[in-house]
Amino acid sequence: MSISEKYFPQEPQSPELKTAIPGPQSKAKLEELSAVYDTKAAYFVTDYYKSLGNYIVDADGNKLLDSYCQISSIALGYNNPALLKVAHSDEMAVALCNRPALACFPSTDYYEILKKGLLSVAPKGLDKVCTAHTGSDANEMAFKAAFLFQASKKRGDKPFTSEELESVMENKLPGTSDMVILSFEKGFHGRLFGSLSTTRSKAIHKLDIPAFEWPKAPFPQLKYPLDQFQAENKAEEERCLKALEEIIVNSPAKIAAAIIEPVQSEGGDNHASPEFFQGIREITKKHGVILIVDEVQTGGGASGKMWLHEHYGIVPDIMTFSKKMQNAGFFFSEAGLAGDQPFRQFNTWCGDPSKALIARTIIEEIKDKNLLTSVTETGDYLYSKLEAISAKYDKMINLRGKGRGFFIAFDAPTPELRNKFIAECKKLGLNIGGCGEQGVRLRPALVFEKKHADILASIIDQAFSKI
Amino acid sequence: MSISEKYFPQEPQSPELKTAIPGPQSKAKLEELSAVYDTKAAYFVTDYYKSLGNYIVDADGNKLLDSYCQISSIALGYNNPALLKVAHSDEMAVALCNRPALACFPSTDYYEILKKGLLSVAPKGLDKVCTAHTGSDANEMAFKAAFLFQASKKRGDKPFTSEELESVMENKLPGTSDMVILSFEKGFHGRLFGSLSTTRSKAIHKLDIPAFEWPKAPFPQLKYPLDQFQAENKAEEERCLKALEEIIVNSPAKIAAAIIEPVQSEGGDNHASPEFFQGIREITKKHGVILIVDEVQTGGGASGKMWLHEHYGIVPDIMTFSKKMQNAGFFFSEAGLAGDQPFRQFNTWCGDPSKALIARTIIEEIKDKNLLTSVTETGDYLYSKLEAISAKYDKMINLRGKGRGFFIAFDAPTPELRNKFIAECKKLGLNIGGCGEQGVRLRPALVFEKKHADILASIIDQAFSKI
Repeated sequence: MSISEKYFPQEPQSPELKTAIPGPQSKAKLEELSAVYDTKAAYFVTDYYKSLGNYIVDADGNKLLDSYCQISSIALGYNNPALLKVAHSDEMAVALCNRPALACFPSTDYYEILKKGLLSVAPKGLDKVCTAHTGSDANEMAFKAAFLFQASKKRGDKPFTSEELESVMENKLPGTSDMVILSFEKGFHGRLFGSLSTTRSKAIHKLDIPAFEWPKAPFPQLKYPLDQFQAENKAEEERCLKALEEIIVNSPAKIAAAIIEPVQSEGGDNHASPEFFQGIREITKKHGVILIVDEVQTGGGASGKMWLHEHYGIVPDIMTFSKKMQNAGFFFSEAGLAGDQPFRQFNTWCGDPSKALIARTIIEEIKDKNLLTSVTETGDYLYSKLEAISAKYDKMINLRGKGRGFFIAFDAPTPELRNKFIAECKKLGLNIGGCGEQGVRLRPALVFEKKHADILASIIDQAFSKI
Repeated sequence: MSISEKYFPQEPQSPELKTAIPGPQSKAKLEELSAVYDTKAAYFVTDYYKSLGNYIVDADGNKLLDSYCQISSIALGYNNPALLKVAHSDEMAVALCNRPALACFPSTDYYEILKKGLLSVAPKGLDKVCTAHTGSDANEMAFKAAFLFQASKKRGDKPFTSEELESVMENKLPGTSDMVILSFEKGFHGRLFGSLSTTRSKAIHKLDIPAFEWPKAPFPQLKYPLDQFQAENKAEEERCLKALEEIIVNSPAKIAAAIIEPVQSEGGDNHASPEFFQGIREITKKHGVILIVDEVQTGGGASGKMWLHEHYGIVPDIMTFSKKMQNAGFFFSEAGLAGDQPFRQFNTWCGDPSKALIARTIIEEIKDKNLLTSVTETGDYLYSKLEAISAKYDKMINLRGKGRGFFIAFDAPTPELRNKFIAECKKLGLNIGGCGEQGVRLRPALVFEKKHADILASIIDQAFSKI
C-alpha cells in the first residue's frame, strides 16, 4: 500500500469536474465575501472539509489534483490523519486557548516541542531557532538579527552614546543604522517594508510602496537544459559572483547581510549550481557579510532534502523558513543572537505553540513515512515524463529542477501562453501555479506519488496540445 | 454565580506561592531552553495546562493572579471552556490541517466565520476586514493600503509609466513612493521595518535598525488627576493639535496616513481627551490624510467598549487589531481597498481561519456573558479602590484610566522604584506589567471580577508599603 493510500484510503482516483471553475457556488460565495473581504486574487472557493490528500475540492464539488497546494504550503496533503489527530489533542487545545508571549512566559513544553520538531531538522551548523509568524516576518527578524550582530561587532564593549539614544527617536543616524541588506535580481523575500525592499520579483509587488535604497546583485540567468549549456552557464555564474564581490567592496554602506533563495521561486524558479552558492558563501564570509538563506518556499522537503540548500553543501549564517512548516522562523548560530540585552529582538508572541505542534507533526511524518525518499524518487519519475512531453511541444521550454525532487518548473514562450496553459489545466482538473513572467511551477504536497505524477503529466500533455 | 465561577469553578481563591519566582523548575527549564531559543526576556516558565481563569501557574506550581495576561493578549482567562470547546471542534481541526492561502482559495465557511465573529463587532463606518497575522503585520498592511490609496488618488486613471515600472525594481522614485506615515511621540506600532519606523516608545526598540525618516507629532503629556488640571491639559492638547497641523501643512513629503493609539500603551499608558482625538480626526480629514487608529493593545473590550476609540465618538479610516482578538487585521472602508488590481496587497496566508474561529468565540462570549458591562463595572470599582490607595502613598502617582474599564495605569516616581514595585508584587503573588519609563499598566482578562480586584488592590497596597 502506498503512502497516500495509507493516509487517504478515500482519495479520489482522478479529477472529477462537475461545473466550469469557478462554478455557480464559488461565484455566489465570492460575491458574498467580496462585500467584506478583498477577493480580487481569488481562483475559487474551496471546501476544506471535502478536500483530501492530493485533491482540492471546490464549493461546487469539483475535485482537482492539486500541484499548487496553497502556494506551496501544504506538506502532507489535505486532511492528513496525523495532523487531524494532533489538531484534536489536548496539547493543541491548551496551545490554542492560552497563546503565550513566548519570550516572556515560555511554556513548560516548548523546549520538547521544538526539540522533537523544528530543532530535529535544523540545518547543519545552525542549532538555535527563533520562531516567528510568517515568511516575511521571519526574513525581517533575520535582517534585524544581522543588523544587531554587525552593530555590536562594530561597537564592541562601548555603551550606546547619548547621541545614538537621542537620534534614534528621530529615526536618524547614528542611532538608527545606515547598513543595508543585499538581495538578488528576481528574488522574493516578502511584502512588508523591509522584506519588500529586498524583493525584486515583479513591479506590481512594489509599486507605490516606500522602500529602502538597498543594493541588489545579479542572479545567474541560466540556459536550459543545463547539460547542453555548461560553459555558458559557468561563465554566467562567474559574472554574477564577480559582480557580487564588486558590489560588496564598492558599497558606500556596510552590507550587513545578503539574502538569497536556493531556488528563486516567486521570481520564476530560477536555479543556479552548487558551485555558484559555494561562491556566494565564500565571498560573504570573506567580507564579513551575514549570509541568510531564505527557505520559505524551498524548505520543508519538497526538494527531496529537508532544506534545498543542503543540495549545495553550504552552511549559511541564518536560514529562514515558513510555508510547508506551517510555523515560521529562522535557524541561526552566533549571528542570530541579537546582542546581550533583552527586548532588542522581541514582539508579543514570538511564535505560536499551536503552529509548533503542527510543524512537529509534519516533521515526524516526514521521517516516519520516509517522505524525502519518496519525493526524490517520484520527482525523478515525474521529471523523466515531463522531459518526454517537453520534447513533443515547442511551447514547453526550459524544463528545470532535475534531481531536486518536486522543485520542477518549465516555461511557456510568452506570459499569455503560460496563462492559457494554466487555464487549460484547470479545465482538465489540475490546479497549478505560475511563477515569474512565463513560468509554471510544480508544488505538490510531499504525499504526491507516481500515480498522481501520471495524471499530472497526462494533463500537462493535453493542455500543451490545446494551446 | 459570577462569570468567573461559571467559567472556572476550580479557579484558585487567592495566589499561592511555593518558591521564589523564578523557582528551581523554571530556572532549570529556562537553562535548557536558552541553549536553543532566546530567553533573555523571560520572567518564568509557565504551565499552561494548570493555569486557570485569572491565575497563571508557573513550572514550580506557584499560582499568581495575572493582571498582565501575556502582554494584554488573553481575553477570556486561561483555559476558558468556551475556547477549549472550539479548540476541540471539527471546524478547528479542518482549519488547522488545511491552512488556506485565503486570498486565492478562500474557504466555504470564511464569510460566515467573519460575519459571526470579527465583522459583528466592526467599528462604526468600517464594514470590511483584512485579516493578518500580528499587530505589526496589521499595521504595515494598513500603511500599504494607505500608500496605495493615496497613489491611486494621485495617479487617477493613468496607467503606470515605464519609468515607474523600471525605477521601482531599483527601489527608486518615481516607482517607489516618497510619501510618509506620521506617528506620535511615545507611540508604539510594532517592530518590523515599517512599523518600527513609526514606533517612538523607547530607544532600545529602535537602536541599530534602519528606519524611514518619517515624521512624528507631539502627543499630549497630560497631568493627573485630570479633573485638577483641566485648563493646563486643554492647552497642552491644543498645542499638540496645532503642531500636528503645522507638520502636515509644512511636510515636504505627502503624509499618506497618521497612526495613533487611542491610549498609548507600551509608551506609558498616555491618555488624551475625546476632544483631542476629535481634533485629530478633523485635521486629518481636512488635509486628506488617512487616519489609522491602532487598537492592537486597546481593543477587544478591555476599556468597557469593544474598541477604545468608541469612547471618543470618532470614525477613523482604518482600525487595526490583534492581541485579545487572537486574530490580527484591520477594519476599513474605502481607504483600505488597495487599488483595483489584485496582488498589490497580498501574501501567502492573508490571515488564518483557526485564529478567526478563536476570535469568533471570544466575541460570542463577550456578547453572551455581557463582559463589556462587567469590565465597565469592575473597572470603576477597581479604580475607586486604587484612588484610595494612591492617596496613602506618595510613591503611587498619576493614576489614570477612569471610566476606561480595565485600562488603568499609574506611575512610580522613578524607573527603579517602578521595577522594585513590580518585583514586590511578584513576591506577593501578582503578575503585573510595566510600561513607559516608570508606568505600571493593568491588563487583566475580561473575566476579571470584583473579587479579583480586591486581591489586586490589596497586593498593590502592600507592595507600595514595602518600597
